[in-house]
Amino acid sequence: MTTETARVEAFSDGVFAIAITLLILEIKIPGPGSGILSAQLLKQWPSYVSFLISFSFIGIMWINHHRLFTHIKRSDNGLLFLNLLLLLGVTAVPFPTAVLAVHLGQGDERAAALLYNGTYFFIAIFFNLLWRYAAADKRKLLAADVDRNAVHRITRQYAFGPLFYLICLGLSWVSVPASLAVNVALACFFALPPHADLMRRR
Amino acid sequence: MTTETARVEAFSDGVFAIAITLLILEIKIPGPGSGILSAQLLKQWPSYVSFLISFSFIGIMWINHHRLFTHIKRSDNGLLFLNLLLLLGVTAVPFPTAVLAVHLGQGDERAAALLYNGTYFFIAIFFNLLWRYAAADKRKLLAADVDRNAVHRITRQYAFGPLFYLICLGLSWVSVPASLAVNVALACFFALPPHADLMRRR
Amino acid sequence: MTTETARVEAFSDGVFAIAITLLILEIKIPGPGSGILSAQLLKQWPSYVSFLISFSFIGIMWINHHRLFTHIKRSDNGLLFLNLLLLLGVTAVPFPTAVLAVHLGQGDERAAALLYNGTYFFIAIFFNLLWRYAAADKRKLLAADVDRNAVHRITRQYAFGPLFYLICLGLSWVSVPASLAVNVALACFFALPPHADLMRRR
Amino acid sequence: MTTETARVEAFSDGVFAIAITLLILEIKIPGPGSGILSAQLLKQWPSYVSFLISFSFIGIMWINHHRLFTHIKRSDNGLLFLNLLLLLGVTAVPFPTAVLAVHLGQGDERAAALLYNGTYFFIAIFFNLLWRYAAADKRKLLAADVDRNAVHRITRQYAFGPLFYLICLGLSWVSVPASLAVNVALACFFALPPHADLMRRR
Repeated sequence: MTTETARVEAFSDGVFAIAITLLILEIKIPGPGSGILSAQLLKQWPSYVSFLISFSFIGIMWINHHRLFTHIKRSDNGLLFLNLLLLLGVTAVPFPTAVLAVHLGQGDERAAALLYNGTYFFIAIFFNLLWRYAAADKRKLLAADVDRNAVHRITRQYAFGPLFYLICLGLSWVSVPASLAVNVALACFFALPPHADLMRRR
Repeated sequence: MTTETARVEAFSDGVFAIAITLLILEIKIPGPGSGILSAQLLKQWPSYVSFLISFSFIGIMWINHHRLFTHIKRSDNGLLFLNLLLLLGVTAVPFPTAVLAVHLGQGDERAAALLYNGTYFFIAIFFNLLWRYAAADKRKLLAADVDRNAVHRITRQYAFGPLFYLICLGLSWVSVPASLAVNVALACFFALPPHADLMRRR
Repeated sequence: MTTETARVEAFSDGVFAIAITLLILEIKIPGPGSGILSAQLLKQWPSYVSFLISFSFIGIMWINHHRLFTHIKRSDNGLLFLNLLLLLGVTAVPFPTAVLAVHLGQGDERAAALLYNGTYFFIAIFFNLLWRYAAADKRKLLAADVDRNAVHRITRQYAFGPLFYLICLGLSWVSVPASLAVNVALACFFALPPHADLMRRR
Repeated sequence: MTTETARVEAFSDGVFAIAITLLILEIKIPGPGSGILSAQLLKQWPSYVSFLISFSFIGIMWINHHRLFTHIKRSDNGLLFLNLLLLLGVTAVPFPTAVLAVHLGQGDERAAALLYNGTYFFIAIFFNLLWRYAAADKRKLLAADVDRNAVHRITRQYAFGPLFYLICLGLSWVSVPASLAVNVALACFFALPPHADLMRRR
């Protein structure tokens, strides 16, 4: 069965939009009796840090999903399942985010950072699975007039994802702030479209 | 009144997307003072199990809804109501999921499993009602050039749903883990499109 | 400025879909230590009653919104504002629903029912405002080939809304269950499209 | 890379729709044992005030976003990022709203109002960034046949935003109610489309 991708994109857009909007609910509202409000608000800085990182990450995942589906023009059962697998990762993000928000700067921040970076490691794998499935020649899911070089550049860029996030995961053992900094740097790397120049140099 | 199905699908996509994304909110965030974080996270395994089953179930319901509406091209009041009835089942899923997550492995897990499997039994009935209504010849809601064999195969596959989920519901009395395993197996069965071969053999 | 209504409908669909899906979050999850689960679940019947009424109500509001926008083909600033006013009513529904769920069968159920029926009274007014604005001849927001009889029948059916919901609101003082029963009956009345026969008889 | 804006608008619609619908969740449900219900409900007036202001604000932001995208016809990476930045502001709104709802009329209402008005100040800047980026001649993101005067009028109207919201922010130090009143007045100003007459007079 081959259908158009419009409804797959609409459903995915909904999931991305909800996951990114739910993040704010994880930030606690300081009550009137719990001390000076401004101090209470400042004390919650780990919540803001994890909110901002997760917002950026989900936003950049959406941009990537959007980028892939400018090339993917047809859908089959396999694509539907791999897309669901990716969305599983997307909907899960608010949980490790909230765990990190509560534990960052506390005694157990390492375990929280491992959960956080581990989630992103799996999402990087899911992105590769989806794209490699869709881009396989025999499936003919891409547009007939697709730019083969653009496809190749995405495949190459994505291939780095699981490795880089695995390094990021390992870094959590050494230094939690360093692992989060690398996580942000990776988000920037995947936010940019794969440049021809960058790839040619390799 | 006969209108196109675009807005019915958009509204349904929204409900599916929200229900599947809300599931993660049911997983509790262990606080900093409540013990070793990794141990706290592991202790929550029933939450992860019920999250994964419910995510798969709603995802597969969406795939089925999508599959039905590749055939359904027109809409009337009856279809709108039966679609709402199905969405009632979809939006309800986070509640039995959360109840199961809290009680799985506890003294009251049977009641939680009955509620959980019972919800799916009703949803299976609602799917049959929607499809049988839409597929009835006299209503002309399907595409004019619809593949009659494909329609017939879906009707046959769906006919098993209520019976199988009733068995699953009965199994909850005997063994909760067994009933959940069958529940997962049923999700896989409905995830796959109805194959001609399988049906021909019957 | 006159634009098409596609994005107004998409935004409204999103709001309806979220409001109808959030309702389930208001139902409390009984914890493991709080007694026999089945008894706990049964004791929560007011939550299920108010969930079902609110789900039906929002679902039927969506069907009505959908019905109006099969006629409305153009949009202007006034329509955007009146549509937002209606959506204000829609998004508010989970609050009176939760209040009713907590207080139904308790000493303060009258106040809860007044809040509940009062919300619907205002929504009925907002529906009239939106439709009368859109249907006014001078604005030319309806399709050029619109069925004038259909428009007239909707206008007539909606005219009863505020009056009927006001009666329903008054009934809350006399009997809360009766007011809820009338509320359900009204939902059924507005679920059905306005029939020519019914209207002609008047 | 240049793609159409359909999916950007769909994703943004989702975020706006969810943020506006989540606001209601911040209003607390008074329990049965906490006093006379009607008195409890009235005591929560700051929640209703901040709900109404935030609902209006997000609704008007959506109308403005809609207005901008009737002119924007093409998309590039920069637009995707600036749109995400704007959505960051939109998804954040429920947090300062809830903080204001809890602290309005209390000792710490000034800090809450500063957070609230400060959020809107940043959103006003983000709106300017998005629009100025899209409207720049060299990028050709607007429709080829765009009304240059309409574009100019939007640019002029938006230029006042950051300044006015900064004044509003400063007013929070003097009088919290006055700052909220100005906030509402500003929402009305941006709700209206930029009129040619008004602008010509300047």
